[in-house]
Amino acid sequence: VNSYIEKLSVSSKRCGSNLCIGLDPDLSRIPHDFLPHSAPEDRLVAFCNTIVDLTRPFAAAYKPNVAFFEALGAPAFSAFDSVVKHIGGTTPVIADAKRGDIGNTGRQYRIAFFDAFGVDALTVNPWMGMDTLEPYLDAPGKAIYVLVLTSNPGSADFMRADEDTTASAALKLTRALHERNKSSETHIGMVVGATKPALLPPFLEAHTDASLLIPGFGAQGGDADAVINLLATHHGLPLLNVSRDILYPVNPDGHWKDNVVNAASIWSKKLLVSHGH
Amino acid sequence: VNSYIEKLSVSSKRCGSNLCIGLDPDLSRIPHDFLPHSAPEDRLVAFCNTIVDLTRPFAAAYKPNVAFFEALGAPAFSAFDSVVKHIGGTTPVIADAKRGDIGNTGRQYRIAFFDAFGVDALTVNPWMGMDTLEPYLDAPGKAIYVLVLTSNPGSADFMRADEDTTASAALKLTRALHERNKSSETHIGMVVGATKPALLPPFLEAHTDASLLIPGFGAQGGDADAVINLLATHHGLPLLNVSRDILYPVNPDGHWKDNVVNAASIWSKKLLVSHGH
Repeated sequence: VNSYIEKLSVSSKRCGSNLCIGLDPDLSRIPHDFLPHSAPEDRLVAFCNTIVDLTRPFAAAYKPNVAFFEALGAPAFSAFDSVVKHIGGTTPVIADAKRGDIGNTGRQYRIAFFDAFGVDALTVNPWMGMDTLEPYLDAPGKAIYVLVLTSNPGSADFMRADEDTTASAALKLTRALHERNKSSETHIGMVVGATKPALLPPFLEAHTDASLLIPGFGAQGGDADAVINLLATHHGLPLLNVSRDILYPVNPDGHWKDNVVNAASIWSKKLLVSHGH
Repeated sequence: VNSYIEKLSVSSKRCGSNLCIGLDPDLSRIPHDFLPHSAPEDRLVAFCNTIVDLTRPFAAAYKPNVAFFEALGAPAFSAFDSVVKHIGGTTPVIADAKRGDIGNTGRQYRIAFFDAFGVDALTVNPWMGMDTLEPYLDAPGKAIYVLVLTSNPGSADFMRADEDTTASAALKLTRALHERNKSSETHIGMVVGATKPALLPPFLEAHTDASLLIPGFGAQGGDADAVINLLATHHGLPLLNVSRDILYPVNPDGHWKDNVVNAASIWSKKLLVSHGH
């Protein structure tokens, strides 16, 4: 077994869930009374670290969204580094950075995320071709999650031509990922959206052992029960991601920290795929 | 006229060239005797700033490749910020970051590059769909260069199915960009590769006024004369990019700084598209 999958499996069993918590730290949504006089980068880091402290019992993995750090400008990656270090070594960290570039540039992204920040996994954009994945594929303890089919309306433009995905770029890609994964030291997983579960079966059948990263629950309206039913017969170890509904729960009662804990607890119970992992 | 195009036009006339210099600062290729005792981030910034000082008379634009900064880890974006500031206000700066994500995440990338770093243009990856471009399109002084057709072998996987690109995703994308550009405040340009000039005409005809960013000269072997001939009848203001051949010229004679100046001077003269811009 790939050692990334092993680490993820241990973490998932520990919390009894397939919940991945997406860290999208939006300065305009952080509670106003939380460190109001601190610098933006310090508020952002402290907010993420507080979320992590509150939600550790419920999260199989964390997925910091690099864009929300980059919006800080110059301090972006020291802030990102602080949060990754705070999460620590036992819960897998997936950098949601959606990188993709030719070989000599791809190697720099690999150095950045796998070596300098030491995250466990990276989301990768395959538009420029299968050769752009190669720089990431010799890292036994790591994974990439390749963008196969996302939840936004624009996923119809290039990933899938229409609801019939059988001739789509996304399905061609899925088959190529499954094939390449057989000889890859790095696990090759996939990002697939949750908002249209009916589209998923051909992808699950084409890459039978992929770890799936499935965003779209909560604010984006993905149907958890439908997706969980589909996953029951898939061999990969899935992660179902919730970001905004846990970080910024809409609940006028109670302190925001209690609301975060409640939201994480509810989603953690709800997003459990029971097929023996 | 879009004010980005105006700024680029002034800069291009000033140096009499369409040369864009790509800043790919690779620590393993920076001359060993250049600040050997400094921290990696300081060496990297000083090297880029030296390249900029040496090549200002020859460059219509600079294209820092964000990946090479990210490889620094935590200090990545303060280093990037320093180099962007050093280039200053009159020569356009294109952040080669190839970002692409759904709306609320795309907005963070837009804030990072257009607002926090204040670059003039950003390369953007369209795989997730046309809606992912929207966050960048209300910035009158800015441009995006969308990845349409790259030079690497993998460009055959999803961008173009084969040498006949008439039914390709890349050409469909080009038509959509041309249409969207008519009502966009931000200029919508395109990245197209130089290594196969014969593939370019349908793209030039489908987006007639796009500023083109054309990598692939020098180390990647693009045919400059063939590309320049094709561009003579296109209405966009093109940038032809050289990175490694200027930053790391292979020439055992002379000091490396002289070699950089010579290489920039030669490429600057060679990469001039004469169609009245």
